[in-house]
Amino acid sequence: MAAPRDDAAVWRGDPFVAATTDTMVEEIDFRLEWPGFDFATLGRRLISINLSDLAAMGAEPRYALVSLTLRGTLPVADARRLYEGIAQQARRFSCAIAGGDVSGTLGLLTLTATLVGRLSSARSMLRREGARAGWLLGVTGSLGGAAAGLRLLETGRRPSTARERNWVSAQLDPTPRVIAGRVLVDAGIRVGGDISDGLYREVERLLDGTRLGATIDIERLPLARGLHRTEWALAVKDSEDFELVCAAPAARIAAARRVLERIDLPLTVVGEIDARPGIRLRNGSRVERLEGAGYEHFR
Amino acid sequence: MAAPRDDAAVWRGDPFVAATTDTMVEEIDFRLEWPGFDFATLGRRLISINLSDLAAMGAEPRYALVSLTLRGTLPVADARRLYEGIAQQARRFSCAIAGGDVSGTLGLLTLTATLVGRLSSARSMLRREGARAGWLLGVTGSLGGAAAGLRLLETGRRPSTARERNWVSAQLDPTPRVIAGRVLVDAGIRVGGDISDGLYREVERLLDGTRLGATIDIERLPLARGLHRTEWALAVKDSEDFELVCAAPAARIAAARRVLERIDLPLTVVGEIDARPGIRLRNGSRVERLEGAGYEHFR
Repeated sequence: MAAPRDDAAVWRGDPFVAATTDTMVEEIDFRLEWPGFDFATLGRRLISINLSDLAAMGAEPRYALVSLTLRGTLPVADARRLYEGIAQQARRFSCAIAGGDVSGTLGLLTLTATLVGRLSSARSMLRREGARAGWLLGVTGSLGGAAAGLRLLETGRRPSTARERNWVSAQLDPTPRVIAGRVLVDAGIRVGGDISDGLYREVERLLDGTRLGATIDIERLPLARGLHRTEWALAVKDSEDFELVCAAPAARIAAARRVLERIDLPLTVVGEIDARPGIRLRNGSRVERLEGAGYEHFR
Repeated sequence: MAAPRDDAAVWRGDPFVAATTDTMVEEIDFRLEWPGFDFATLGRRLISINLSDLAAMGAEPRYALVSLTLRGTLPVADARRLYEGIAQQARRFSCAIAGGDVSGTLGLLTLTATLVGRLSSARSMLRREGARAGWLLGVTGSLGGAAAGLRLLETGRRPSTARERNWVSAQLDPTPRVIAGRVLVDAGIRVGGDISDGLYREVERLLDGTRLGATIDIERLPLARGLHRTEWALAVKDSEDFELVCAAPAARIAAARRVLERIDLPLTVVGEIDARPGIRLRNGSRVERLEGAGYEHFR
């Protein structure tokens, strides 16, 4: 790799590349006044949300380019902790920081990362298209924690129990499902995405442009610990859990689940793809079809 | 390439890759109230400043990922023109827009692009290190125009002559020297960078970590048309001309110059590398050694 002195980073390329960029903006995506706010955690999250996009393709992270727009009044110690968090999370996922840019602003902190990953072949990846009727919908980890954490942070109250701390951690410091993404691909799964806007929205994307539909089973949702079953909407609406959702034949889901069990990551079947357009939520004996963002009315 | 629906862009990789990221911030890098300010031009500049970093490596542009942080109050027509400018400049330099992200902000516009380019081999590139005593310093195009344009924009007066319009254009809509970067590499030149912080700073970077020095000949500077010779500091101090500077044996500079003449781009020898540490400015019979940013005192 060329030295940091040069105008651009240089590296030996991979045969198939996946790349993504994502930004976090102060007062929109985070607030410095949140109880327990910490710049190192913010730096980790910047890398994590981009790693999640690579995970959602089944790609292996390789390089990160980071662009930080900081106020001149930001204490140097905060900028240093931000950078430490970025470096720490990149290192944890074997991702080299290949480039960076720091700009001044008179306004809000704006943090952008671009991540470049490798795919082992042109076929070995997760795509949003290709779902078929009869396939099952699986999700990694647990859902709803990030939304519950955000709800707590916005009250200004510090989390007081282990469960509350876990919710807040799901919001502020999510674990990108990089390994899981590759496990899904290795199990022959080819359709999936990350849950960065809630489960409903992601399933909608998997169905986009098809005449297929899906049924999501509320009772099977792997809700984050401490969430009551009546709070299922936290998992379905626009939360940022950064888990993966995939669609595949039952046998492939089962194969992936067996591998993921070894790293203690559940892969839970939460519904199925079918030939009737629209997304339905099944809550016990009740089934309702929802359109667009209409799920908010179904409680 | 994967469809825009997917979480990340996917492409077939190149053997050697160069990548860079750069950001423009409202009120720091541009002002909406500048006379004649235009969002399409701003979009072109976002791509150009990043292309310039690839040019400075001798890389061929391939992919761009763009992250735009926009106020909700920004008129849609402005956002559209911004995007059109981005797309136009990317297309002009055969660069595919592979990914993008639009975020909302309550604050200032913050625009980031990450560009990925290809290098034909691990050796065929421009680096900042490797300069040797006796080599000449060459610069492409003309210098000082961007600083003169900025000076004019900050007065709030519209440019009234063709020369003034050219200065403003050098500031707002620079032409990245992508072709020139590859010509330099093809001529066997291996040391260079882009002039994004003034000629002095770039020469300083080429000398960084060596015991070498350089002499810059003020009388040979290719000043932008309409600039008086006494205004040479506009070319030397922290202007953003986005031209290339290179260091190489005289014969290689001459070879590159002959090729660049065909595309009407001058390559001008403005000085030389020597074995005496420090950067000296020669102005007629007067020679002064300058340290760091001290050149401001030498007028």
